Amino acid sequence: MLSHIRTVLVHTSHPGNIGSTARAMKTMGLKYLYLVRPKKFPAAEASALAAGADDILDKAKIVDTLDMAVKDCSLIIGASARNRALPIPVLNPREAAEKAIAETIQGRVAILYGREYAGLSNEELERCHFHIQIPTNPKYSSLNLAAAVQVISYEIRVALKGHSQNVDDKVSEERELVTADDMERFYTRLDEVLQAVNFINPHHPNRIMPRLRRLYNRARVDKNELNILRGILTEVSKKLEL
Amino acid sequence: MLSHIRTVLVHTSHPGNIGSTARAMKTMGLKYLYLVRPKKFPAAEASALAAGADDILDKAKIVDTLDMAVKDCSLIIGASARNRALPIPVLNPREAAEKAIAETIQGRVAILYGREYAGLSNEELERCHFHIQIPTNPKYSSLNLAAAVQVISYEIRVALKGHSQNVDDKVSEERELVTADDMERFYTRLDEVLQAVNFINPHHPNRIMPRLRRLYNRARVDKNELNILRGILTEVSKKLEL
Repeated sequence: MLSHIRTVLVHTSHPGNIGSTARAMKTMGLKYLYLVRPKKFPAAEASALAAGADDILDKAKIVDTLDMAVKDCSLIIGASARNRALPIPVLNPREAAEKAIAETIQGRVAILYGREYAGLSNEELERCHFHIQIPTNPKYSSLNLAAAVQVISYEIRVALKGHSQNVDDKVSEERELVTADDMERFYTRLDEVLQAVNFINPHHPNRIMPRLRRLYNRARVDKNELNILRGILTEVSKKLEL
Repeated sequence: MLSHIRTVLVHTSHPGNIGSTARAMKTMGLKYLYLVRPKKFPAAEASALAAGADDILDKAKIVDTLDMAVKDCSLIIGASARNRALPIPVLNPREAAEKAIAETIQGRVAILYGREYAGLSNEELERCHFHIQIPTNPKYSSLNLAAAVQVISYEIRVALKGHSQNVDDKVSEERELVTADDMERFYTRLDEVLQAVNFINPHHPNRIMPRLRRLYNRARVDKNELNILRGILTEVSKKLEL
């Protein structure tokens, strides 16, 4: 189950944090690390701080875009210290870990961690089904990056242990999950159609697409439903002769 | 309550770990750090890694013996990675945190963390009422010292707040819910448009509408989102000259 959960570090500045992250992951049994445009990697500081977890660094996938790191994932959860203007459901680490473990029965999960100082961008956060907020001292909430990975990975391990006792899950029903990639193609097409009907003006981008993303992310669209939504776009396009 | 819980580092070798520990403590609202014969402290590395938590370092009490660090405490809990021959009850971090918080009502609590490589000695462990074992990957259990402090301090904060304070509710407060009536009008309009684009054939009703209902019900569409969805239908209808 843990092999279906990956850790994604987005635009990390300090290679030491990548090393500490690998160590934090490995202590909790997580193996797969994705690095979206790290500032400096590979690096000696990373290996030094990884201690015995350099196997995770060796296998780490370095990618250019967040898309490449999450495209085959059905559940994306972003760690974020800040409250955002566009609220996406917020989970505490325990709830997030339980969701992640449940998801591994049929899908892959990405947990995203942002830049050391600026966190995840709004656009990156909008890609997430859920946000995780680690409860902190309101006067001093600045967890080190690897410390955040440690806490969340720890909860994942605890959830894994708890889960083995009650494996019956509900995610399974008859719903087949879709990947982030499938959803991106749908959003691209939707955006085109909404521009064609003048609902979205490409020169004055508004908050329509982020809101629609949030709506469909919340619903956790399944394959059958995505086929329906795509079918609607196809028929509308035909009629409009797009 | 948190002011009755202290963190005690025993014979720490690397001052950087003392700094990271201060940061980990402060993020979770813990303030009192005791250092039993640290190898090197104060030290520049400690201050650097403490980030904004140098107030904790400034107030840290440096003592010569474990006794001096715990003498006024009624509950002593030792973090220990290893299984010991000693018959002292082992708690996981969650259970330990709950005991610690409960204790603060009438006493003081010390959480002990041992040396980077050797942990706590048997004699030190014998001073404890309980041991904490953080669940780890059996093949790689070497948490960094500050990472262990982070996990346990996090559990203390969670225990303090009382489980699952529903952060989720905050999100829903901002979302203005829609009535079943609003949704029915939307579904009626959607059905008409889908018939107009031949996606639904009125003579061969299919499972499209029930599935779309299920999708939007699951998402708990809010007022803002419903306005967007209605807006899309309006623009599409205009274009199609419905």
